[in-house]
Amino acid sequence: MEIAFYNGEFLQEVDEKIIPIQERGHQFGDGVYEVVRVYNNKPFMLEEHLDRFQKSAEAILLQLPYTRQELTEIIDQGVKRSQEKNVDVYFQVTRGIAPRLHLFPNTKAVFSMTIKPSRPIDPAKKESGVAVLLLEDERWKNCYIKSLNLLPNVIAKQHAASRGCDEAILVKDGSITEGSSSNLFVIKDGTIYTTPATKGILHGITRLAVFQLAEKMELPIKEQHFTEEFLLQADEAFITSTTQEILPINKVDEFEIPTHYTITKKLQNEFLKLTK
Amino acid sequence: MEIAFYNGEFLQEVDEKIIPIQERGHQFGDGVYEVVRVYNNKPFMLEEHLDRFQKSAEAILLQLPYTRQELTEIIDQGVKRSQEKNVDVYFQVTRGIAPRLHLFPNTKAVFSMTIKPSRPIDPAKKESGVAVLLLEDERWKNCYIKSLNLLPNVIAKQHAASRGCDEAILVKDGSITEGSSSNLFVIKDGTIYTTPATKGILHGITRLAVFQLAEKMELPIKEQHFTEEFLLQADEAFITSTTQEILPINKVDEFEIPTHYTITKKLQNEFLKLTK
Repeated sequence: MEIAFYNGEFLQEVDEKIIPIQERGHQFGDGVYEVVRVYNNKPFMLEEHLDRFQKSAEAILLQLPYTRQELTEIIDQGVKRSQEKNVDVYFQVTRGIAPRLHLFPNTKAVFSMTIKPSRPIDPAKKESGVAVLLLEDERWKNCYIKSLNLLPNVIAKQHAASRGCDEAILVKDGSITEGSSSNLFVIKDGTIYTTPATKGILHGITRLAVFQLAEKMELPIKEQHFTEEFLLQADEAFITSTTQEILPINKVDEFEIPTHYTITKKLQNEFLKLTK
Repeated sequence: MEIAFYNGEFLQEVDEKIIPIQERGHQFGDGVYEVVRVYNNKPFMLEEHLDRFQKSAEAILLQLPYTRQELTEIIDQGVKRSQEKNVDVYFQVTRGIAPRLHLFPNTKAVFSMTIKPSRPIDPAKKESGVAVLLLEDERWKNCYIKSLNLLPNVIAKQHAASRGCDEAILVKDGSITEGSSSNLFVIKDGTIYTTPATKGILHGITRLAVFQLAEKMELPIKEQHFTEEFLLQADEAFITSTTQEILPINKVDEFEIPTHYTITKKLQNEFLKLTK
């Protein structure tokens, strides 16, 4: 069952009309969010998601309306109400409801949440990989903040789709940053590379899981800036995100990437164990 | 009286709960907006606002749900309903209501509007000027699109306020772009300078009015990139926006700007005539 929660109460249905026009989310995208996947009733890396949620809120000077304990309880209660074992929990907080003015209003922040059965990942994509499109990274400087200002990401993703690709890989000043809704990893000569966790990229939770797995599996992994050319010469490449997990890349623009996926498959298998 | 309109209907009250959580505005800031000031029942430069609204929508590949004629009628009807002569009309369009996914949904865009008595401009500020704070421009590359992704603007404005300033003036790669919700003009040796209307700044309607006035008044006006130092050495400086009109600047950070406002006052007076 789909569940929704807004400003202190569970709703009758996900599509319930509940938000006034003068909500800071609706008029400014003035808020931050998280997506947590629940596997078998267990929210995956929830503490890491809540850490990041708090960091994002602090970065935009927003006071969360709930304690960490309360957030955990609301999520837990929502998952129970859904009566599903595998769900995607989306939650966001905005600066609240107030007459439209750029300045911060003197109101309480508003938390909203939806819980829905997990969007399945196409097994063919997990196995055979996806095509990606290189695009200029036109976003703002603080993409480490998981904010509701997602218009550039939305447009990049759509642009990729219109060219038959699953994801847009963004390039800023000659260096690859990340995907429109994923982090990117490149494998070359047995070493795994990914863009350093600067302010310019999202510090992905699945990205973090890959670091933990690589360490456990004794695979060399390095944070390093790299170019499009480095990606095109990859032995393997993959993207990561909460809802896409680990997806190998088989094509970048018109260039093919090897599809043996030797290390990527090992990581996928170990990741799968974490979700059991 | 305050008026609100959402998705085809006028609401009972501005604060009516009307938007579902899964609105693209609420979750992605996936939309564009305008603010039009009505003076004495007459929307000021409405055609120019509607031109820009259409351009913003096109730039994010969003199909407006109404024709230009219909938009004009909705605004007109709203202003009449307000029974006020001087109002601020805020309207926005989002990509609609759909389960959360970055990709464009196959739904109709949603238009919302509020109409409220015009926010008065402090006469002391109009007369004596305002202080501004220089801040780094951290926004995305397409600020000519009047999008709902306003988090960086909101944060810059708040930062300025916390330092006792009315506006943040943004600086990118050594050049001044614009204010967090205004355009900036500098007067030096009788010539008016402002940043060129590139993709990096909003092509303000009041900015356009200043160009038209300067031409009519035979004042030299130039689009030119300039530095912080150029601003600090200004003979006069002012900001423009729909709701702030033309406001002189008396201070940039800790540096004072001359307050004779010789040309600025002439422009203010001519602008006032346009609104009669």
